[in-house]
Amino acid sequence: MSVADEKEARDKRRSVKLSSFARRLFNEWRRLALPISDERIVIAASGGADSTALLLGFDEILKAKGLGLKITVAHLDHGLRGENGARDVGKVVRLLSDLNYEIETAEVKVKERAAASHDNLEQAARRARYEFLEQAARKFRSRFVLTGHTLDDQAETVLLRLIRGSAAEGLGGMEPVRFLDASKKISLVRPLLRWARRTDTEEYCRARGVEFCVDEMNANEQFARVRVRRKLLPLLETFNPRIVETLARTADLLREDASLLKAEAAVLSNKSSVSDDERGSSPLLIQPLKSAPPAIRRRALRLWIERERGSVRRLELVHLKNVESLLQGERGGRVIELPGGGCVERRKGKLYFRKSCEKIET
Amino acid sequence: MSVADEKEARDKRRSVKLSSFARRLFNEWRRLALPISDERIVIAASGGADSTALLLGFDEILKAKGLGLKITVAHLDHGLRGENGARDVGKVVRLLSDLNYEIETAEVKVKERAAASHDNLEQAARRARYEFLEQAARKFRSRFVLTGHTLDDQAETVLLRLIRGSAAEGLGGMEPVRFLDASKKISLVRPLLRWARRTDTEEYCRARGVEFCVDEMNANEQFARVRVRRKLLPLLETFNPRIVETLARTADLLREDASLLKAEAAVLSNKSSVSDDERGSSPLLIQPLKSAPPAIRRRALRLWIERERGSVRRLELVHLKNVESLLQGERGGRVIELPGGGCVERRKGKLYFRKSCEKIET
Repeated sequence: MSVADEKEARDKRRSVKLSSFARRLFNEWRRLALPISDERIVIAASGGADSTALLLGFDEILKAKGLGLKITVAHLDHGLRGENGARDVGKVVRLLSDLNYEIETAEVKVKERAAASHDNLEQAARRARYEFLEQAARKFRSRFVLTGHTLDDQAETVLLRLIRGSAAEGLGGMEPVRFLDASKKISLVRPLLRWARRTDTEEYCRARGVEFCVDEMNANEQFARVRVRRKLLPLLETFNPRIVETLARTADLLREDASLLKAEAAVLSNKSSVSDDERGSSPLLIQPLKSAPPAIRRRALRLWIERERGSVRRLELVHLKNVESLLQGERGGRVIELPGGGCVERRKGKLYFRKSCEKIET
Repeated sequence: MSVADEKEARDKRRSVKLSSFARRLFNEWRRLALPISDERIVIAASGGADSTALLLGFDEILKAKGLGLKITVAHLDHGLRGENGARDVGKVVRLLSDLNYEIETAEVKVKERAAASHDNLEQAARRARYEFLEQAARKFRSRFVLTGHTLDDQAETVLLRLIRGSAAEGLGGMEPVRFLDASKKISLVRPLLRWARRTDTEEYCRARGVEFCVDEMNANEQFARVRVRRKLLPLLETFNPRIVETLARTADLLREDASLLKAEAAVLSNKSSVSDDERGSSPLLIQPLKSAPPAIRRRALRLWIERERGSVRRLELVHLKNVESLLQGERGGRVIELPGGGCVERRKGKLYFRKSCEKIET
């Protein structure tokens, strides 16, 4: 942003009276160095307090002419809300019409999708939602999709990943900004992630006199996330009343660690790659891997498997450790089978990835 | 270890019948590449199940001639056990006499020490214990002090540090082997840390027909560690029955990450240091810090403050972020005051540490 833009934005901020919520939202938008004008943003609205507050916050900033952005509101009906569903969707649609923004809606049968894809309900709903948001962004030629994830969501994510055994990558939680699509043209932005508590979004909705929906799934303790919210976080709060902020800050630090280590692993993986292999794959040289620190080596092996196989599905630490064990000693001809398909073989001072695990005569 | 030693140890292991507990202890000792003969080890014994099992396990291995080590048992009476204290100490002493090893005991008034040093009881007890163990090692010319920390202790440590807001360094938990003293001559070894559950140590004590003491402090929910053990871990087990092993494995990974990042930070800190400063301190050049990734930069600043001030006491992330903010822009003359004493000033493209925060005329 130029110095003139900077000054203009500062003047605007001073000249307009914003609520505390909208001002913090505006400050975060600036901190993330996102465009202040001439862009259309897609705001994902579920009807819950978080996304409603996000929408109302931007509405306030736009009306005060703090930002020169256009808004499209995107609402996906998951078909999961049971008998209150229709009434809730009605509420969302009424709010949207009152605000008078462009609206994109769609309906998806998440249960059916989950059954077809062998995902669980949460996964299927998340997948459907992000696909829908990406399509909406394309349709409205927007480069920014915004979701209402809060500090509380971040803390829950960190805890769920801790429980599942994630390393630094997973414990880093959600990023405030990341690319949504493979071609890196659309960014997913979470402008509430680093500062807003769920209580802040609820209060702000109430202060604006806007009703929000309470998702019935939020009370269903079959979902691990719901139990984290209703049981684990309250217990952790008895140790540290600011546990949510603490976990979110730890996530920020671990994300920085992981992103650097991953970059260093990519360098190692490229340095160790031999590209001119007769079988069209890129084996890795043993020697540079062997002398690398374990934190980098395991990440490099993971990146290499992802590239060779196209996915790291079902690949866990124990399997990477098995592949690492191939680096020990001098003997070739050893093979490690990977879950989710494929094998890694040590041969002539290199590691080879093979799609099929049948024995190859050498 | 030479190939001959290797073979000898393998033969010994095969020729002797060890209990499952002792065999796993022996395997871990080998995995840690610790000496198999001609050394004296100091085993810290509290009388609780963990350290008693550790002692009995080594007793079993030594009697089966699996290792050629000598043992000194070190017991510190904390003077904290209340009315059952004397009886418990009696139990420990009886067990030790039965086993017929060299014994080193001492008594310390932890409450009085805590009051004098402004530590809490736990900190004061830990400090007294490690001082005593270091002295015992010197007295008996031993290079290895062993404690009975288990997987459960590791999981508790990780959770306590998560609650307190630690980054990767803290979340890495305890190390299986680290130096105990400043001169790096004595190692603290935790041979149960990576595999033994508390239930394993209790079972093994029972199988050997040896009574162990239950520390009254273990039931006192004033201590955060006790509440982690009795409330938080059981709740986490409802999400993941193997949460203790999961947390310990995550700690291993984060410890590897942190140790590499710290090494890289030391390189950056040295590279940025200017040694020939007129005031006898070593200022840091702004430029190399500015272009470094934040994960390295903050660790380098921390190392530098530790070196310049002699301690990082009370230094938290927020203070490092304040120091980092000095790197922004071009303007010098700005000063950040550190909690625990001292200031960092930006001047002429460098960061200076000053013991006193009074304004210096330049």
